[in-house]
Amino acid sequence: MTFRATILTLYPEMFPGPLGAALAGRALREGRWSCDPVNIRDFTEDRHRTVDDTPAGGGAGMVLRADIVGRAVDAHADGRPLIALTPRGAPLTQRRVRDLAAGPGAVLLCGRFEGFDERLFEAREIEQLSIGDYILSGGEMAALVLLDACVRLIPGVMGAASSGDEESFESGLLEYPHYTRPVEWEGRTIPEVLRSGDHARIAAWRQSQAEIDTRLRRPDLWERHEGARVGSPSGARHGSKD
Amino acid sequence: MTFRATILTLYPEMFPGPLGAALAGRALREGRWSCDPVNIRDFTEDRHRTVDDTPAGGGAGMVLRADIVGRAVDAHADGRPLIALTPRGAPLTQRRVRDLAAGPGAVLLCGRFEGFDERLFEAREIEQLSIGDYILSGGEMAALVLLDACVRLIPGVMGAASSGDEESFESGLLEYPHYTRPVEWEGRTIPEVLRSGDHARIAAWRQSQAEIDTRLRRPDLWERHEGARVGSPSGARHGSKD
Repeated sequence: MTFRATILTLYPEMFPGPLGAALAGRALREGRWSCDPVNIRDFTEDRHRTVDDTPAGGGAGMVLRADIVGRAVDAHADGRPLIALTPRGAPLTQRRVRDLAAGPGAVLLCGRFEGFDERLFEAREIEQLSIGDYILSGGEMAALVLLDACVRLIPGVMGAASSGDEESFESGLLEYPHYTRPVEWEGRTIPEVLRSGDHARIAAWRQSQAEIDTRLRRPDLWERHEGARVGSPSGARHGSKD
Repeated sequence: MTFRATILTLYPEMFPGPLGAALAGRALREGRWSCDPVNIRDFTEDRHRTVDDTPAGGGAGMVLRADIVGRAVDAHADGRPLIALTPRGAPLTQRRVRDLAAGPGAVLLCGRFEGFDERLFEAREIEQLSIGDYILSGGEMAALVLLDACVRLIPGVMGAASSGDEESFESGLLEYPHYTRPVEWEGRTIPEVLRSGDHARIAAWRQSQAEIDTRLRRPDLWERHEGARVGSPSGARHGSKD
């Protein structure tokens, strides 16, 4: 089964863009995934190919029309997840990436200007995802990010290398720091434990570093991790009954 | 002053990529910003142009060597912020984007494989930023996201349109939902208040919608927003002394 990405956008020329290079590009040429950008303007019916209009109630910018985008969506909805990239969406997680990568692909909706007419989301089953709490010029860059994250997980794309990463992220910790040769650089040496050959010590050190870095750099992740590790109070009670 | 982006990468052909189209592309051609990808391999000294080596202590994947990347960094460090895109970094925020966009540009370091030798960060002043809690095939896509977010804020790139967005995001709330013509679509009408012409009512409705959506969709943002709005207990006490 091939992972099929259809991207509804005003800028089809942005795809595959950077995904045409490196591992994702090779996988694209090998047919492991497909990338079909579709111009939303092809679903307009006026001479000027208008896709947007001014916001109801006033304000700056333009809003993408529900009728036009709705037609574009309906023409491509085929059971694959329908996803709009928008800062109003749920934060993208590695877990969601993994689920998507294991599926048949996705139809991605890229907003521009002030975004979509909200009725689109009331009338169609569209998942709204955000790649982060910052504002982009449109959904295209977010779609590229989502696709990059998915494509690397498609079987055969990465090989075995790096397959451990995302599990480490899913455990809710940042990855431990890495070192490689030269052993000494500018007077700084690789930590002794990593040169010890003692696999148990190395694993313990890495786990401890991952915990320290997460606690210091990402107290939000650490809090969630600790919550998940300790389990809910009711879960603990169930355990004590055994 | 032009916003100058230098990108240290193994895939210089990915830049400007999608940033060569739409508003960012026009701004690039107008000289409002510059985009200079630099191949990290140009700083190798062996015949095979090797940039990486196996992880000290074992494990899958390869690690980018501190000596090679260090030379690439030193050749381009000129006072602009030095930023590595890595999932171990601090989460990118709109506030950081705004600060960067107001500055002279940035030197962006894109990792591949398992990332950089950690000594690079001990030996050089490099800010580590993450665009989100998911794993990409490399830092390039994250660099494109960061640049897209910055470039749209460079004076003259967007015009007045959309300038309100990021303030609304910085206030810590999701943006309110948008509507536009047609007034009726598939039996769904634009909310009456937005057609009332009553600007005060419209503003109040939008604020209330932004609050409702943030509370429901992003309890994490809502909690921070409420904390900031109410102020710290000590802040309140200071206020009551006046």
